[in-house]
Formats: sequence, structure tokens, C-alpha cells
Amino acid sequence: MDMEMKVIIDTIWVLITAKMVFFMNLGFAMVESGFARAKNCVNILSKNFIVFAVSSLGFLFLGWGLMFGDGNPLVGLKGLWFLAGADNSPATGSAYQGVYSAISWTGVPLFAKFFFQLVFCGTAATIVSGAVAERIKYKSFILFSFIMTMFIYPIVGHWIWGGGWLATKGMFDFAGSTVVHSVGGWAALAGVLLLGPRFGKYSNGRINPIPGHNLSLATLGTFVLWFGWFGFNPGSTMMADPMAISHVAVTTNTAAAAAIMSSTIISWIILGKPDLGMTLNGCLAGLVAITAPCAFVNVASSIIIGLIAGILVVLAVIGFDKLRIDDPVGALSVHLVNGIFGTLCVGLFAQDKIVGVATGSGLFFGGGTKLLSAQLTGIIASGAYTFIVALIAWGILKATMGIRVSLQEEIEGLDIGEHGNAAYPEFLSRKPATSYLGIKSEE
Amino acid sequence: MDMEMKVIIDTIWVLITAKMVFFMNLGFAMVESGFARAKNCVNILSKNFIVFAVSSLGFLFLGWGLMFGDGNPLVGLKGLWFLAGADNSPATGSAYQGVYSAISWTGVPLFAKFFFQLVFCGTAATIVSGAVAERIKYKSFILFSFIMTMFIYPIVGHWIWGGGWLATKGMFDFAGSTVVHSVGGWAALAGVLLLGPRFGKYSNGRINPIPGHNLSLATLGTFVLWFGWFGFNPGSTMMADPMAISHVAVTTNTAAAAAIMSSTIISWIILGKPDLGMTLNGCLAGLVAITAPCAFVNVASSIIIGLIAGILVVLAVIGFDKLRIDDPVGALSVHLVNGIFGTLCVGLFAQDKIVGVATGSGLFFGGGTKLLSAQLTGIIASGAYTFIVALIAWGILKATMGIRVSLQEEIEGLDIGEHGNAAYPEFLSRKPATSYLGIKSEE
Amino acid sequence: MDMEMKVIIDTIWVLITAKMVFFMNLGFAMVESGFARAKNCVNILSKNFIVFAVSSLGFLFLGWGLMFGDGNPLVGLKGLWFLAGADNSPATGSAYQGVYSAISWTGVPLFAKFFFQLVFCGTAATIVSGAVAERIKYKSFILFSFIMTMFIYPIVGHWIWGGGWLATKGMFDFAGSTVVHSVGGWAALAGVLLLGPRFGKYSNGRINPIPGHNLSLATLGTFVLWFGWFGFNPGSTMMADPMAISHVAVTTNTAAAAAIMSSTIISWIILGKPDLGMTLNGCLAGLVAITAPCAFVNVASSIIIGLIAGILVVLAVIGFDKLRIDDPVGALSVHLVNGIFGTLCVGLFAQDKIVGVATGSGLFFGGGTKLLSAQLTGIIASGAYTFIVALIAWGILKATMGIRVSLQEEIEGLDIGEHGNAAYPEFLSRKPATSYLGIKSEE
Repeated sequence: MDMEMKVIIDTIWVLITAKMVFFMNLGFAMVESGFARAKNCVNILSKNFIVFAVSSLGFLFLGWGLMFGDGNPLVGLKGLWFLAGADNSPATGSAYQGVYSAISWTGVPLFAKFFFQLVFCGTAATIVSGAVAERIKYKSFILFSFIMTMFIYPIVGHWIWGGGWLATKGMFDFAGSTVVHSVGGWAALAGVLLLGPRFGKYSNGRINPIPGHNLSLATLGTFVLWFGWFGFNPGSTMMADPMAISHVAVTTNTAAAAAIMSSTIISWIILGKPDLGMTLNGCLAGLVAITAPCAFVNVASSIIIGLIAGILVVLAVIGFDKLRIDDPVGALSVHLVNGIFGTLCVGLFAQDKIVGVATGSGLFFGGGTKLLSAQLTGIIASGAYTFIVALIAWGILKATMGIRVSLQEEIEGLDIGEHGNAAYPEFLSRKPATSYLGIKSEE
Repeated sequence: MDMEMKVIIDTIWVLITAKMVFFMNLGFAMVESGFARAKNCVNILSKNFIVFAVSSLGFLFLGWGLMFGDGNPLVGLKGLWFLAGADNSPATGSAYQGVYSAISWTGVPLFAKFFFQLVFCGTAATIVSGAVAERIKYKSFILFSFIMTMFIYPIVGHWIWGGGWLATKGMFDFAGSTVVHSVGGWAALAGVLLLGPRFGKYSNGRINPIPGHNLSLATLGTFVLWFGWFGFNPGSTMMADPMAISHVAVTTNTAAAAAIMSSTIISWIILGKPDLGMTLNGCLAGLVAITAPCAFVNVASSIIIGLIAGILVVLAVIGFDKLRIDDPVGALSVHLVNGIFGTLCVGLFAQDKIVGVATGSGLFFGGGTKLLSAQLTGIIASGAYTFIVALIAWGILKATMGIRVSLQEEIEGLDIGEHGNAAYPEFLSRKPATSYLGIKSEE
Repeated sequence: MDMEMKVIIDTIWVLITAKMVFFMNLGFAMVESGFARAKNCVNILSKNFIVFAVSSLGFLFLGWGLMFGDGNPLVGLKGLWFLAGADNSPATGSAYQGVYSAISWTGVPLFAKFFFQLVFCGTAATIVSGAVAERIKYKSFILFSFIMTMFIYPIVGHWIWGGGWLATKGMFDFAGSTVVHSVGGWAALAGVLLLGPRFGKYSNGRINPIPGHNLSLATLGTFVLWFGWFGFNPGSTMMADPMAISHVAVTTNTAAAAAIMSSTIISWIILGKPDLGMTLNGCLAGLVAITAPCAFVNVASSIIIGLIAGILVVLAVIGFDKLRIDDPVGALSVHLVNGIFGTLCVGLFAQDKIVGVATGSGLFFGGGTKLLSAQLTGIIASGAYTFIVALIAWGILKATMGIRVSLQEEIEGLDIGEHGNAAYPEFLSRKPATSYLGIKSEE
């Protein structure tokens, strides 16, 4: 094969799929603002907009270096700052000379590698936004996002994708059920626990539903995310291998489809009607769950994974509420729970070399518990590191500048309080949702 | 040429354009919900969301096999279930060994072929959604969509794209004016006839306009569809032939542009003002009409086709209303009428081998009526099959579980009735549109 | 390298990036309608929708020929009409035989070149829409758009990209900070000056803020534009050069990120709170500013350019208001001011052959003022030509058919007046924004 041509084609593939993943920022912004109240809409939009700017700078300054720089099993140490290490990409394999060896298997220019990895880092950071919505200070969120993209995400990324100890241990996470989704979920959980629930969410011993203000936007956002996932998963080949990218496109889609059906049916059964929010989160749950195993499992397995993911997300949404863990958009149920589940699925459903990667087989395909145990180790280690560091980071922010807006600002809405904007200044809205939830009595 | 490299490039092209076609699901969801009332918005979003999940499973389980499996001129018979037939793609031509011969002309992996064909099947299914909106039961729509993607679409698809009798007869439908659009339109028409018009649409001998609730979303959706069509039409080469895909991109766009101008001007003349809904549907009409002939006609012809399509759609919207056929979003005028018109245009405007395909020339370019008559045969046969089978399917659903919600639910809105959700719970709306249409007296 | 294969790959790259630029039409539509009032929403959507249809026809009929036809340093003269000149693309260099020599350096089919250049022309035309919003007659806007895409844009385009006198002079504008953005901005400015400010904007000696009706859509639109810019800038290579396209993707993104941060911080300082509108316009400002230099500067320079652009746009928005130049969406501050700034940046920050183009170096990299002076010449000449011709065009339209709607129509909204539509007929809105701005007294 003409290697010069191969570099061209692989670069096109990597850049185009990266752009699709970038576009997922729009998806998150619309899903999260749609699922929240109108009075906090500008704040959510602002957070989800600026977070990719923060990621772009944070991952450039330091994150990339910590993640892909040559170093030890725990952290990258060379070429740390500003993407400035030696590198002769697109040379690969033994021809590669530089300090980012862990990603020298893909024959594209350094900047293409960086851009692709950046949009994944940005996804992890934006996941946090939804769970902490409707009460977090804008400034604190921005600062946490810098910490996330410079110190949290890149470390776990190094362990799994940067040649670190979990990679050595034989853990596999094809497109980031753990690296991106559960890491985002753990960081969000730490924030949610330190923030506490929204005013009025759990009052008088009841769980008060706070419906989103715009399900059109939430649906739009979910379609955009589904679309973007066709960059996220097939792009993670980082080279245009026809069999692999076709396979991944199909398993990704089929898992989403199965999860949409199962989440819709289970919500129909449990709630009495097919709740659109559950259908949408079901889709995302299926996509998150198939992210790790998409290149390692067959189509039938992807259906089973999707079916389970769709049920899991509905149960998790109900469960977190029972635990009084207030996640306005279901981000924990989607990204944390199904990120973990999807990573486990590699250990259960993997078939060795199904598109060429030597993962070994999972428990259900005769591989015993070897792969499953590596996956479990990865889940626990990534979770522990992320949760603890995030807890410390949120804790320091809370102790110094505070992380939660004042009660009055929360009741009046963060849009005016934090930004001086109203999302829809011309439209009359009903009495603020907080007042018809019977929380006046709580004051 | 390096054949291994060609497989890679063609696969990239097929997958990327397929993703763009997938994205059209968002377009349909936004156009249809935008053109409907707020009280039915969640229902429409739900239908347009779940329909692609249904398509993904239905087309995987059986649709693909019936459409592309080797068989007889009427139906595929081999490799029917679950994409499980023998296949050595990306081998092509005489090197191909497998049961999906009809699509062995394109040198991409089987899963790439499947994914590309799936998104087309999904488009046909989602077209139905708009026409039956604002009164159909969610459950019945889901079941019909399974029937559509497993038994209706694949059969016509086999006739035209799967090596069936219409292909043999010399009928040409490059990207699916008939296979996708008019098939979707006929299935929708059957449903509309069995459902009847919305409450209050035709009362007191008048045609009561029921304006859509959100023209921003309708415009957004149309832009997304226009964008997606640049995957739909140029992608239908299923290989990256530079001349063909460039040609198709231009004819597709020019037809849309011409149709936008003519639908705007004609609505300006007939209605007195340039109605945005007509402009948007004009765009879609031009795109539907150019879908069959885009690779067989020159740019000047594409302008003429677009100009006529834009006029046709305005007249059809008015005409269907006169016939008391209630289509809330104009889906019949766009997809059925212009699907037929576009398919005919191949017989009128085709120029033999304009980008390499030996279609023979159409009536206006010296080819006589040979091609035109094959096109007519295809239109009639596809229409008859689809309409009859859809009528039977809708009829069985109507007789068993019912297809229409109760009058009270329809008046109150399907969002609460079917889903227990409100799309915009915080915004006050005017009195329900049904009440200011003077239909109280009808009760 | 296999040249036949190279043509295929380059065509894929050019077409896909062109489609992304096409998609920016959605971005402009959402940003502009979101930043305007609900009563003018349909009008803005209509303008932004039809403008690409107008561009498609105008640029096909004449624009392309004037821009790329062989001719003299001022204007193309051969192959003027309907893309009908001799051309043997994808032949390049000395093998090229045809009348569009200026663009014979890229080896893709003629229709691919046309489609790519068309979407850029369309962008210039749609920029005008926002600045003249909320008071312009629909018909006049349509006619001006024909003039813009047939006589204004193509001439400047010829000078800079069509082998004209500015190209000869050594001016560089990689993806169109001048050709597209400042040309759009100058044409808009001419319109704004002849139109005058919106009723109530500057009354009683005060600048009355008129907030946009939907910041969700404005944010959506900005994300779409940011996404589209990954086609706009990297696609302007018009061939898939891996190093160049990767480099441009990164500098483009980094400039946007830096501008988002600086515009947010500066608005936080000046306005007291981080205004979302400023953040969004900051992003666009950074993207416009990096458009000319993206392939000629390093990543550190792109950050500096972005930081300055973000500050410039905030100051410009405030400044135009002080000058009583009423631009409802900030289009002049984004496209005109930063188009000029970005073009200058080439003269300041360029590093010779950083991705292969022999620009010479800019002032800050040891190249002296040679490049800077060419850039300045280009800015002044393009601005003078565009502004004067646009002023004449707007002037003729004003003198003949009028360009501004009646005061009563403006107060009641252009949606009903121009189109007979309401964007959100079911939602109650507050008293029209004009009434709470204290302008009753002005009457």
C-alpha cells in the first residue's frame, strides 16, 4: 500500500470523526439545558459553551503531555507542556522518534492526534456540567474544568490509553466508556455530593419532579449526540480500517436502538407511560455502554448490551433520586452507571480479534475471568482516583470561593444572577417551578 | 489503482454520507414538531426518535435480507435473517461470493453496505410520521414502523435496487425518489385515509388552518435535511467517483435552490405573502424531486426540475386540503407528489451516461418514451404495492388495537395523553388552537 | 503517489468540508434569529434560508465566472456564464486546459471547485442579513443578495483568490477573513447606514438594549458555526494535505477558545457579569480573525490572535452603539472588525512556509512590513470597493422600491407584515419589547 496515501486518508478520517465528536458539545448543551428550567438555561448554555474553550487550552497546556508523554506507568513526564515534545509523526512503529510513543501506532500528524484526543477530553469535562446544573457558581465550574482537563482526565487517560499500568494489565476500553464517560461521571458525582440537591427537589419527605423546560431541545441534543457518536466510536480506530469502522458503526447503532426500545418499554411499565426523557437517556445509555466494547463484540452482543443499558438507566435515575442524589439531567445514570457497565461488558462479551484487536475473549465467549478481572481493576482504580481527586478539588473550591450560588439566586434563577441574561425574555412563564412544588413551607 | 486503498476510500465515503443521512432523522423531527402544535410536540418527537430504533432492528432482522438477498424478481430469499448470509465483501463483480449479489457492485464491507441502506430505510419510515401526526396512537405507530421496515420498504427496494423486476425493466431511481420518498408517502397516505382528519381541521365547511408552534425549529429541521441530502444523493454512488459525486452535489443543490425560489414566488402570488412554511416545503420538494434524477441530468435540467417541484408542492398542499386529506406537515405534498414527479423526470430529462450510468436518454433528450414508460411502470407498481399493503396493515391495527387516540386526548394533546410529558411546561400558551377554530359548535 | 487516487481523496475532502460550510447557513439563521425579537423571527429565518438559494443561482449564473474566469487583474472575462467555460479539471498545472486557470492548482473536478466556492459566497451573503435585521424589506434583501453574489463578492474574490491584482501584490487571505467576512461586513455596513437604526433603539438620548428572544437558539447557532469552521478553514487547502489540514484545525480551534475566554472575561469586567451574547460573539470573532492566518501562523500566535479578537469584539459592540450604528446581532463587530484584524494578523504573525505556503514572514517574525503593507492594501481596496458598490446598490433599492418596512409594520413585527406568519403562535409574549423601552414618548 502507498504509505503516503495512507497517511492522507487516515488523517481525513481522524479529523472528520474528531469534528463530529466536537459537535457533541452542541448535543450536551441542548440535552442539559432542555432538561433544566428556563431560569437556569443561560447558565447551562454558558457552562457547556465555555467548557470546550477551557478544555482546548487546558489539554494543550498540560493535559496532552501528562496523558501521552513518555513517562512511567502512572503519568507522562516528557513533552509535558504545550505539545512541545520531540515528535516525527506521522512516522509509526520503529520509525517513530519522539516522546509521545504511546500514540505512535497511528500514522497521522501530531496535530491530528492532538485534535482527536482533545475532543474526547472535552467530552469528559462537559459531562460534569449537567449533574451540577441549576445551583453551581459559574466561576467555580470554570476552574474545576481546568483541573479536570489538566490533572484528572489525563492521568486516567495515561493509565489506559497512554501506555500506563492499566494498559499493561490488559484492560481494554476502545472508545472510552471508562476514560471519558465514567471519569466524567465520577467527577460529577463528587461535585453533586458537595453541592447538595437543588432547593425544593427533596422537601417534605417527597421527591419532587422538576421537569425540563424544553423537550424539543433535549431531543435535538440527543440526536446530535447519537450522530456525534458515529465519530466517537468508529473514529477511535484512529485509522481508516474498513472492516473495523464498518463494524463499529453497526454495533454502536444497534446498541443505541436496543437501549431505546428497552428504556421506553421499561418506563412504560414502571411509570405507566413511555416517558420521552427516559427514551432519550436510554439512547445515551446504550451509546455509553457500547463505547468500550464496540470493536470487540458482535452485533448480537451489542443488542444485548443495549437492552440492558436501557433498563439500567431507568433504574438508576429512580435509584439516585431515592438516595437523594440530585442529578438534574440524569448524567450519572447515563455516563457513570453505563460507563461502568460498558467497561465490564468487554470482559463479558469480547471475542478475540473480532476486528483484529487481540483482546482475548470475555467470560461468555470462553475466555474465563482474565479479561473481566482486568476490566474490574480498571473500573475501580479509575473511579477511585477520579472521585478522590475531584472531591479534593471541589472541596478546595468550596472552602475558598464557594461552589453554590445563594439560595435567593437559586430561586430566582442563575441566568440573571450569574449572567444578567434571560434566555427567553419575551415569553411569559408560569410561576417558577420551585413555587408549585410546595417548598414555600420548607423556608 | 490500488484496490485495497480504493476499498478504504469508498468505505469512508459510504460511512460518512450514511451518517449524514442518519442525521436527517433530526431534520424530520424538527420539521414535523415545528409544524405541529405544542400540545403534540412530545408525541411527534417520540415518534421520530423511536422510529430509527425500530428501523435499525427491523431492517437488521429481516428487511435487509428481503431487499438484497438473492431470490426471485419479487423478493429476496437467501440470507434473510439478521444479515447472516454468506458474503465475502468487499469483493466485487466476479470475485464476489455470497448471497447479496445485487449490491456486490460496490466494494465496501458488508456492514458498510448495511449501515448505508439502513439509513435510507429509516428515512422512508420517518416520512410516515408527519402525515399521521397529532392523532395517532404511539403504540400503533411503532408497530406500523416495524411492518414498514420489515415488509413494505424492502420489497419495493428489492424490485428497484435489489435486482428485482423493475431493475430488469430498466427503471432508474438513483437515490430513491420512489424507493424512499414515494414509498414513504404512499404508506402515509394509507394511514391518513384510515385515520381521518384532525378534530377541527375541516369543520363548518371550512378549512381551518392549524399553524405550527415553532417555525424556528421547522427551519432548523429543513436546513438539517438539506445538509443531510448532500449525503443522501452524492452518497448513493456508494463509491467515491469524483466526477459523479461532484455532479450530484451540484444538481442536488441547484434543484433545491430553484424550488425555494419558485415555491416562495408562487406562494407570494397565491397567498399574497411569501409564507415561510411554503418556502421550507419548497426546498424539500426540490430535493425529493432531484433524488431520482440527480446523477442522470445536467445542471440546467436540475433547475427546471426544481422550479416545477416548488410549484407542485404549493399546489399539492392546497389540493390535499380541498380533498379533505389532512396532512399536518405537508409530507404527502413533499414526498409522495414530488417523489412521483422526480421519478418521472428521469424519463424526461435523463442524458445517457452523463456521469457514466447507461440509463438511455429521456424524452426531452431524444430517447423517446422507452425510459419514461419504465419509470411509469415503476411508479405505478411501487405505489400500488405500498398503498395496498399499508392499507391492510393500518386496517388490521385499526381493527385490533385502534390507531387513533380518543377525542378528548386529541383535544387535550397527545403529549400528556400518550407520554405524560409536556414539551414546554413552563410556558403559558394561548387557548388550545382547537378552541379558536370555532369547533366548539361541531361537538 | 497514485494521481487518480489523489483526485478521489481530494474530492472527498473538498466536498465534505464544503458541506460543513453549507451547514453554517443553519448557524447564521439560529444566531441571528436568536439575537432578534420573536416578532421578527420568521423574517430573519426566511432571509437566512432564501439567501443560500439566491447565492446558488447568482454565483452559478455569473459570480463564478467573474471570480475565476481568466481575464485581467480586475475581473474575470472568460467562461462567465453558467459555469460553461472550457475546463479539463481535475487536470492541474501545465496539464490544465481551460479558462479557470486561477483555480487550476487544485486537482478536483470543476463541479467540486464550484460547490466549494459557492458555499463561501453564500457565507458572505448571509452575513449581511443579521446587521439589517428587524427593519428591512424581504424583497429588497433578496434583490441585494443577487447583487452581492453576482457583482460584489466575485470581484473582490477575483482580486485575491482569482489571480487578480491583490494576489499579484502578495496579499494572503487563507480562508477569507477579507474575501468573505469583511466583504460581508462592509456590504452590511452600507445597508445599516442607509436603513438607520431600529425604532426605539436610540431614543431619548439613550442606548436601549433590545435583548434577543432565544439564547438557546443563538448558542445552538454558534456551535454550528464553530463546527462549520472546521470545514471553512481546513477545507480551504482544497486538497488533503495532512500536515496543513491538521495544523489549521488546531489553530482555528485554539483561536476560538482564546477568544471565548477573553471576551467572557472582558465582558465580566466591563459589564459586571459574563454576558452569554458576548461569549458567543467572542467565539465567532476569534474564528473570523484566525480565518486569514490559520495556515500561516503557529499555535501560540493563534492564541494571541484569539485573545485580541475576543476583546475587540466586545469593544466594537459597545463602540458601534455609541456611534448609533444599529447592528442587532453584532455582525459588524464580528465579521467586519475581526475580518480586518485577522487579515492584518497575517502581516504580523505569519511564519514563512509554516505549512508550506511561501507567504514570507510577518512583522513579528522578522519579515519587516512588506507582507503587512500588502495586507493593508488588500483591506483598504476590498473595503472601498465593497462599501461603495454596496452603498450604490442599497441606494438604488432605497430610491426605487424602498428598503425599510413601515414604522407600523416594524412595531408590530415583520413576521406578520412581510410573511403573514408568526414564529410561535401559541405562546404568549410580554408586551412588545419596543414598548418597555420608553419609546412611546418618541412618537
